[in-house]
Amino acid sequence: MTRLYHFPLSPFCRKVRLTLAEKRIEVELVEERYWEQDPEFLRRNPAGKVPILRMNGRNMAESQAICEYLDEIAPEPRLMPRDPEARYEVRRLCAWFDDTFHDEVTSKLVYERVNKKVMKLGYPDSRNVKAGAMRIKFHLDYMDWLLEQRRWLAGNEMTLADFTAAAHLSCLDYISDVDWNRSQNVRDWYAKIKSRPAFRSILADQVPGFPPPPHYADLDF
Amino acid sequence: MTRLYHFPLSPFCRKVRLTLAEKRIEVELVEERYWEQDPEFLRRNPAGKVPILRMNGRNMAESQAICEYLDEIAPEPRLMPRDPEARYEVRRLCAWFDDTFHDEVTSKLVYERVNKKVMKLGYPDSRNVKAGAMRIKFHLDYMDWLLEQRRWLAGNEMTLADFTAAAHLSCLDYISDVDWNRSQNVRDWYAKIKSRPAFRSILADQVPGFPPPPHYADLDF
Repeated sequence: MTRLYHFPLSPFCRKVRLTLAEKRIEVELVEERYWEQDPEFLRRNPAGKVPILRMNGRNMAESQAICEYLDEIAPEPRLMPRDPEARYEVRRLCAWFDDTFHDEVTSKLVYERVNKKVMKLGYPDSRNVKAGAMRIKFHLDYMDWLLEQRRWLAGNEMTLADFTAAAHLSCLDYISDVDWNRSQNVRDWYAKIKSRPAFRSILADQVPGFPPPPHYADLDF
Repeated sequence: MTRLYHFPLSPFCRKVRLTLAEKRIEVELVEERYWEQDPEFLRRNPAGKVPILRMNGRNMAESQAICEYLDEIAPEPRLMPRDPEARYEVRRLCAWFDDTFHDEVTSKLVYERVNKKVMKLGYPDSRNVKAGAMRIKFHLDYMDWLLEQRRWLAGNEMTLADFTAAAHLSCLDYISDVDWNRSQNVRDWYAKIKSRPAFRSILADQVPGFPPPPHYADLDF
């Protein structure tokens, strides 16, 4: 049985969950309080990070490497295009969301507001929260600009870039940190991706002490 | 003409330079003091980062996306294997060095000792330098363990994982922060990769105010 060790509000775990679900690969989800450094978990994963995908007897780490692997062994539906130029654009955007967006927005908002409390690391740093709330506007505008020219973020087909971006935005939406009125293009894009069957498990997530807002799981938000 | 905007001691730029050179793609190197936020450079690259590869009239960012693209359009010599399991392992290690190793070691040593001075950001933070000097030992031991089982880091063929690791280690070697006596396996591996023609331009790098140690460019170090 394929098993994913994950934390519900980790964008990297959500990216892998979306990819698995889109490809209809059955997986058992195991919630891992990775910051507690359980020795059994550390044995599986010395870096102490999530996600860890246990598949065919092997533990796999690094979400982008996992997702590209899944796309290669289970190519339907395809999340990476075939053309090198298009593949570059998908990978560029995946890196943009997982590095730049993560550093400037996700870590500043989700980690400050939720992870710090769950991990008992103290109160949110209001400077970080303020910086994240400011920077997300710039990123939503960038997405708006991309979606002005394309049906999906990396081109006219849905790709791993869309799942990567949606993984981050859905974590932020869980704590009501996305202003859906800022861009109709972004809102329409998120409505399309949110209504996919692959998204269902993510919309059902619950973090104790942090109930999601009513619009979070609403397809007509 | 293909042009790379780079900074000599950036591991991400070095990874792209090594890939270009290995594939014998001629490139004009343009040193970019990216932290000075030159408006002309920012126009090409709103994120203000290096490397930026200007190729066929388009500006490309994100080193891993660039290198995989180069491997797809110029497959000789191949830096990504064909088998999905092997490709996963290459990508996992690229992410390991570019994220974990970078955060724990490269940023703690190269950025503290060199970039801070070059960018006029003050003195190195000795806690960071100490932490980086401690963590590099763990990483060298991990590389030793991999190389005990394999000829190259990700398997028995040289791949992008080797160039990624060598990009980081060569920056650290420029400031004498690699203890080559810690592992004969790692030393032999680095000697092999350092003697490739693709490495020459990197061994000729000079950062004003930071002369490299004599062993840096010595193939018999």
